[in-house]
Amino acid sequence: MPPNSRPGDAVFANVERVNAELFTLTYGAIVRQLLTDFEEVDEVNKQLDTMGYNIGIRLIDDFLAKANITRCSDFRETAETIAKVGFKMFLGVTGSVANWNADGTECSLILDDNPLVDFVELPETCQGLYYCNILCGVIRGALEMVSMRTEVKFVKDILRGDDAYEMRLKLLEQVPEEYPYKDDD
Amino acid sequence: MPPNSRPGDAVFANVERVNAELFTLTYGAIVRQLLTDFEEVDEVNKQLDTMGYNIGIRLIDDFLAKANITRCSDFRETAETIAKVGFKMFLGVTGSVANWNADGTECSLILDDNPLVDFVELPETCQGLYYCNILCGVIRGALEMVSMRTEVKFVKDILRGDDAYEMRLKLLEQVPEEYPYKDDD
Repeated sequence: MPPNSRPGDAVFANVERVNAELFTLTYGAIVRQLLTDFEEVDEVNKQLDTMGYNIGIRLIDDFLAKANITRCSDFRETAETIAKVGFKMFLGVTGSVANWNADGTECSLILDDNPLVDFVELPETCQGLYYCNILCGVIRGALEMVSMRTEVKFVKDILRGDDAYEMRLKLLEQVPEEYPYKDDD
Repeated sequence: MPPNSRPGDAVFANVERVNAELFTLTYGAIVRQLLTDFEEVDEVNKQLDTMGYNIGIRLIDDFLAKANITRCSDFRETAETIAKVGFKMFLGVTGSVANWNADGTECSLILDDNPLVDFVELPETCQGLYYCNILCGVIRGALEMVSMRTEVKFVKDILRGDDAYEMRLKLLEQVPEEYPYKDDD
């Protein structure tokens, strides 16, 4: 691999893709629909998270099949893989990992750029909305399928006036993988 | 241009893109949400069409800015442009045009492949659903912004057992473009 290439780039170049603007507008249609359906913005955040979870538990297979990565040795490596390979493979942007806690169970995933929000401005009435909350659900769902129970939530959002998109990722439990057979079967 | 290249290919290579599977699953989440919200499948078809319309009236700008096409001289050329450049630019697939009526106001847009439906199977309860109906709305909305009032509806759908996705596109009215100024101003 040439020294300047990043692990997500080659993968992103090889997956099937659709136009980002179509995706952005389609995602906007979901959020608008949920805002119509539910009175409370908190409930919309929750629905987006659930939708994302259902997507994440399916996307993980595609990711593992195509990302050409080896098993992550620990949670730090998992977080780096999400930021560098996962975001690139699915959204075409690269994120970073920061703000680890002392025991390495909690960190922030940071995106400076985010194709979900192109052309979006939140009206006054939606001030509690985490517009991209679906991403938290996707990450939570995907990690659950590789035996990590996590909590993922937005703590910074450019649409709300912050300087970046920052999701706080917290490892709650690492479930030991169980095999349906014993080694000596 | 090399003889075998198609007009949509170069454009598609140059637009920003996201992973097709993420888009497919996100679109599936919309349809599922609408099926939860509305009891009647017909109403879901209508909602998808309306969502598409709202997307189409915005996507057309991106299309005209990036597709590098000249003004279509007639409705036949418009239909060909949608099938060859539009579908490619936004969905990454190429469609075809067929079944023109005698006076050239009505034709079919045909897709053999359609990234919206990967992994989709319709349950028995959704038999009246046109799963991809958002596409009809997108085309209708986009054409309205270039002064063509149209009717667009699915007449064949692989998910319903047909051999292709076929949308019937009917030109209802071509509104002459009005300029906000006179030539001698």
